[in-house]
Amino acid sequence: MSLIEDLNWRHAVKAYDPSKKVSQEDLYTILEAARLAPTSSGLQPFRIVVVENQELKEKMVQGALNPEVMRDSSHVLVFAAWDSYSNEKIDKVYDHHTDVRDLPQGRFNSYTDMLKKIYGAQTPAEHFAHTARQTYISLGLAMAQAAELKIDSTPAEGFSNDVVDEILNLKELGLKSVSLLYLGYRDAEKDWLSTMKKVRVPMEEFIIKK
Amino acid sequence: MSLIEDLNWRHAVKAYDPSKKVSQEDLYTILEAARLAPTSSGLQPFRIVVVENQELKEKMVQGALNPEVMRDSSHVLVFAAWDSYSNEKIDKVYDHHTDVRDLPQGRFNSYTDMLKKIYGAQTPAEHFAHTARQTYISLGLAMAQAAELKIDSTPAEGFSNDVVDEILNLKELGLKSVSLLYLGYRDAEKDWLSTMKKVRVPMEEFIIKK
Repeated sequence: MSLIEDLNWRHAVKAYDPSKKVSQEDLYTILEAARLAPTSSGLQPFRIVVVENQELKEKMVQGALNPEVMRDSSHVLVFAAWDSYSNEKIDKVYDHHTDVRDLPQGRFNSYTDMLKKIYGAQTPAEHFAHTARQTYISLGLAMAQAAELKIDSTPAEGFSNDVVDEILNLKELGLKSVSLLYLGYRDAEKDWLSTMKKVRVPMEEFIIKK
Repeated sequence: MSLIEDLNWRHAVKAYDPSKKVSQEDLYTILEAARLAPTSSGLQPFRIVVVENQELKEKMVQGALNPEVMRDSSHVLVFAAWDSYSNEKIDKVYDHHTDVRDLPQGRFNSYTDMLKKIYGAQTPAEHFAHTARQTYISLGLAMAQAAELKIDSTPAEGFSNDVVDEILNLKELGLKSVSLLYLGYRDAEKDWLSTMKKVRVPMEEFIIKK
């Protein structure tokens, strides 16, 4: 199957079969696609919290727009972005780069100095606006990977960030929740969207040629 | 090739061969993947400006971090998000949904009423923060599609949004530039990143299991 076929196959599933679980192997592949997502300056300024525990899911549904979808899914991935950039975080990433590439430490100093200058002049709110954006690249690739494996998924922004952040202790990790991705297998009878045509804006409206 | 293999193959190319052009057929496939990207409430609150014209590219490089990369690429995709949501825009999308699905107009009224209430209470800056995030899902899928076709790409935030918005007359279209995606074929000798190992945060640091 091609990516186009996978993207046509998938939709935001509205009802899961709670008896069907995503295997650890498939879960790992989805997380690997998410991890390989490119990000601004390669900083990967977010983490993914993997929630399988049913009790935790029950707590997280407080304030969710579609609580039963979260509840019946196999796993919930929480995309959580760094609440801020810092010199230490930037150095840690680029020290890892030089280690993996067997380059002298400091090889990217002129680049990281520029990054530190840019982010040093910004507020934490500006940092988070930027780190949050990066999570969506990863979210998209995780959905594409799930579809390639014929695993259903539902991206969700309709939840209480405060509830999720508190339940998962994200603040103390320097993270803030941005979006969720439910994974599992659809209950085709209950999922009203399963039988509906996919709708997108027509190509001629979507692109502007220059 | 699988998505994982495609994501391992790609990197943010730092030098293009200006003599090699992406075919119209391949360009269309990349744009189709971008168009199929899921977005919040299915609103697809962005458009892609496709720039092939060399003179226009020369103007857009003003203020770009890597001007020669943009200049030598085959095509530049400009991901430009709606500057705001409005009741009219929401209705237009959902009228299209009911048309395509052969449903009575107004079938989704309770849902669109909720959206109008949520966005009606927000400022245009809050709208743009949200619409801009959605573009990154599409950006990620466009890169994955390019990789599947063995077409190189470079995502870029390092450019002057004001310059690009003005050159492309985005303001009058109710759009604001968010990111660029250069497409083309690498010049492997000049592209210093071609020979370097891909670096990502290790999986055990990237995920938090609950």
